[in-house]
Formats: sequence, structure tokens, C-alpha cells
Amino acid sequence: MTTFTYRRAFTVAWAHCDPAGIVFNPRFFEFFDTNTWGLFEAALGVKQHDLAATYGIVGIALVDARANFMKPAAFGDTVELVSRVSEFRRSSFDVEHTLRNKGEVAVEGRESRVWAVRRKDDPDKITTAPIPPEVIAKFG
Amino acid sequence: MTTFTYRRAFTVAWAHCDPAGIVFNPRFFEFFDTNTWGLFEAALGVKQHDLAATYGIVGIALVDARANFMKPAAFGDTVELVSRVSEFRRSSFDVEHTLRNKGEVAVEGRESRVWAVRRKDDPDKITTAPIPPEVIAKFG
Amino acid sequence: MTTFTYRRAFTVAWAHCDPAGIVFNPRFFEFFDTNTWGLFEAALGVKQHDLAATYGIVGIALVDARANFMKPAAFGDTVELVSRVSEFRRSSFDVEHTLRNKGEVAVEGRESRVWAVRRKDDPDKITTAPIPPEVIAKFG
Amino acid sequence: MTTFTYRRAFTVAWAHCDPAGIVFNPRFFEFFDTNTWGLFEAALGVKQHDLAATYGIVGIALVDARANFMKPAAFGDTVELVSRVSEFRRSSFDVEHTLRNKGEVAVEGRESRVWAVRRKDDPDKITTAPIPPEVIAKFG
Repeated sequence: MTTFTYRRAFTVAWAHCDPAGIVFNPRFFEFFDTNTWGLFEAALGVKQHDLAATYGIVGIALVDARANFMKPAAFGDTVELVSRVSEFRRSSFDVEHTLRNKGEVAVEGRESRVWAVRRKDDPDKITTAPIPPEVIAKFG
Repeated sequence: MTTFTYRRAFTVAWAHCDPAGIVFNPRFFEFFDTNTWGLFEAALGVKQHDLAATYGIVGIALVDARANFMKPAAFGDTVELVSRVSEFRRSSFDVEHTLRNKGEVAVEGRESRVWAVRRKDDPDKITTAPIPPEVIAKFG
Repeated sequence: MTTFTYRRAFTVAWAHCDPAGIVFNPRFFEFFDTNTWGLFEAALGVKQHDLAATYGIVGIALVDARANFMKPAAFGDTVELVSRVSEFRRSSFDVEHTLRNKGEVAVEGRESRVWAVRRKDDPDKITTAPIPPEVIAKFG
Repeated sequence: MTTFTYRRAFTVAWAHCDPAGIVFNPRFFEFFDTNTWGLFEAALGVKQHDLAATYGIVGIALVDARANFMKPAAFGDTVELVSRVSEFRRSSFDVEHTLRNKGEVAVEGRESRVWAVRRKDDPDKITTAPIPPEVIAKFG
């Protein structure tokens, strides 16, 4: 478990909600995605749209995502989404996301992503590469 | 033109963007919607999810929306969306939205909305009602 | 594993794709949700917006969702999403979703949902109820 | 007014709807966008993801969009969206969209788009180019 943590508080918008008046589940995966970009920007001190160029990658590609919906979040609720890398492996990593509503955990999520680069022998294809130690070090 | 203005600055997320790397146009209408709720909450001092109950309405229903896309907004750009009511009529009003990117106007939008209530003779149906003067007064 | 299967083929739209030109991950969870409604409508022979009233439920609430992204789906690809209930339990069930692109499995998803009803002692609160045997029987 | 018409019928999904149980307005602009791509694919006989390469353009960039919301469309409604180019100009054109719900016009939309190409002197910049007569001819 790394120690660098990224927090974002926001109000649940009408736009996020479904006919039940609560956040439509795919929106949580959108929240996770946005927080992962914010986490990397904050940890590495590199603007999110410069991450690919800075590290010579095509991106941090998602290979697995899951969420456990414990309590709903409704229109107008102020929620906080806290994200951190729970594990770095050689060329992949997991991000843990915890969304709290009024102090209680409402949703727990996890993304598995890979450090994705173009193949040298065929730049149209994507493969994974080792995550640089200096990147990992920035997450504590 | 009313004087009360609501401003929201945010970073354009990966989630907002299309294969051209810029904000996908329907997202701007989502930004407008979220700002209109924020504008009413701020002007009236009532939480957005309490607006309907507070004023005995079913909502501020959209009847017309338009946007003029002048410059793109790309992933990672910090933009500012400024919104205000440009005109109150008897039971309808217009909201003007201006999105600036690096200080330049990128998108201009306008929503026309109505003060929507349930019909007394048939609560399953919606009609419009006069906007209370005290509501209009709060917008300056 | 039940035998009733729901299939939906569609073209990946510009609207679904991110700056990498491939389907943005939360969209897959939206595809899953839409297919689950379609699956229930088809299996039960009840229009999706009538399911709640027909069975006296508030809905089939999602408690867990996950997806494994194996291959991308790009703008213009024709994909097929096949869904079925993999397991019915007393008051919950799992839906398995398999998205194929050019015949190959691109995404595997799973949703866990509950048969949600209002509490008799407090209709503002939601609880789970046993899934009627005649509902389960329709899925084969 | 050109004569080539593109029609798409679909069911309003839970995913499209807001807490009022009706289609959230930005979704209509998404429907329009998807129909415009479908219209061009159908009229020109070129797959939508091949349009840019086939015609040497970067895209058919949106410069203006508007919608008039006359009647709502609710979860489960089967709607039909009919689209056609209402006017071709030298390097721009308008697309008219009409969404019908149970035979009645529910939403009327219009997009203005440009035939966008890279500038020869600065390929990072986009400009407009004349729409080829053979493209226009295909729309009747």
C-alpha cells in the first residue's frame, strides 16, 4: 500500500442521477477514472495531459474495474472520493477508491491498470512496460 | 439581464473527451445543467435538491437549449463556466452560460426553462406557473 | 446457470469513445445496465418500465459490478453483448455479460443485484425480498 | 433541403434518464451526434470510422447545436429519430433531427457542422475546406 492519497470532494449533480434519484452506477467508474488521473498528476507533479509524453507511454490502460455499492449517493449530496495506489507490480498497479457520503463509506472501487507503451517492432500495437522506479517512489 | 453570477472552474477530464481529444459536445450541455442548479442554489440560498420542495414546483424544466462552439477545450484544460439568468419572463426564464478556456470564450450557451408545477386538476400532468417575485428579486 | 439469453448487437459510437479512440470504460457498465433491463423484459415478457409495478418492487438494485477488459472496442466496431443470469439466490442474483468484437471476447462483466422492495414498517427505506419462483422459472 | 433520410428507432434506456424519469437533455445531443454519423455512413456508403481517411478530413466538426424540447421521452418509450441535411453551404452544413415519441414530435434539433481539414502550412491547426460536390450529390 502506497501512502500518497488524492482526495476530491464534490456535490452529486442532477446529471449524475438516474430515475431512482441516486448516482447511476457507471458514473462511479467515471469518478474513479477522473480521480486516478488526478492522483497521478498530484503524485508525479506532471499535468495529466502531459503524463503520456513525459513518460513515453500511451497511457495507464484499464484492464479490470470493480465497485461495491454499499449505500446510495443522492442528488445534492456532498461526497468525498479518496484514491491511492494499493499495489505496484512490475508493469501494472491497482488503484483503490473509497467514496464517502456523510462520513460513511458508500462505494468501494478498485481499478487495475497497466503501464502501456507502443511496441518497438510494431508501433500500432500496444504492450506493457516496467513502471519506472522513480514513478513508484513518488507514491510513497 | 440579472446581476447574480455563478462561476465554476474545473479541469477538463479524460471522461469528458472524445476521440478528437476535446470535450464531446453533449458534455457542455451537462456542464450547463449543473451550473444552472448551482446558480439557483447560490442565488436562492436553498440546497439544489430542496428547491422543488421549497417552492412547490416539480422542477425548472428545460424547453430549449443551444450552444455555439467557438474554440475547443481539451483534456487537462482548466476552464471556467460563468452562468446567469439573462431574462425572467412570467413563468419562464433564460440562462446564459459562457465557458472560457485560457481567458478566451470557447463556448456560449443558452437554456430556456420553465417554472414547472403539477396541475391541480390532474397531478400527473405538468404545467407552468408564475415565478414568484421574491425568487426573481434574489437574482438582482 | 440459467439458459435464457439476451443478445444485442450495436455499433460503437463516437459518443462512446475516449481520446484513445476506444470505448471509455464506464460506457461498458452502461451497456451492461441496458442489457440487464432488456434481459428481464425479454425473459418475463413485461415492459422494462412496468417491471417495478408488476412485481411490487422498487427495482433490481445493483450491489456489485465488475468488468475485465481484454481487448478494446473502437469507434465503428460492431459488437455483440450477450447477457444471462448466472445465478439466482434467495433475494439476489448475478448477471453475466460477454461483449464480443469480431467474434472475440473483448469484455467480460458481472453485476450482482438484489430484488429491492420498500420496507413495510418504513416505506422510505429499502430492503430485499425473496425473488418469486415464477420469476426465476422464466429464465430457464 | 436534401432528400436522403436516416432513421433510427430505439428504446429509451434507464441509462438515458434523470431523476424526473425522462431523458436527460444532453443525451438528446448524443443521439443527434450518433445519428449524424449514421446519416453520413448511410448516404456516402463509407463506414463512419473511415470517413475521415476517405475524404482527407479530420472530421465534421460541430460549431452550433440546438434543441427544442416539446414533449418528454420516458424510460421504456420507443422513439424514432429521423435526421437529414437541411442545407449544404460551401464548407458547412446543417443537420435537422426530429425525435418522435408515439408518433408525436417530442424534440427538434439542429446541428451546424463544418468540413474540417488540417492546415497545409501548420498541420496542428484546423481549418475548413469546400465540401466535395460528389459528397453533396449523395444526399439527394
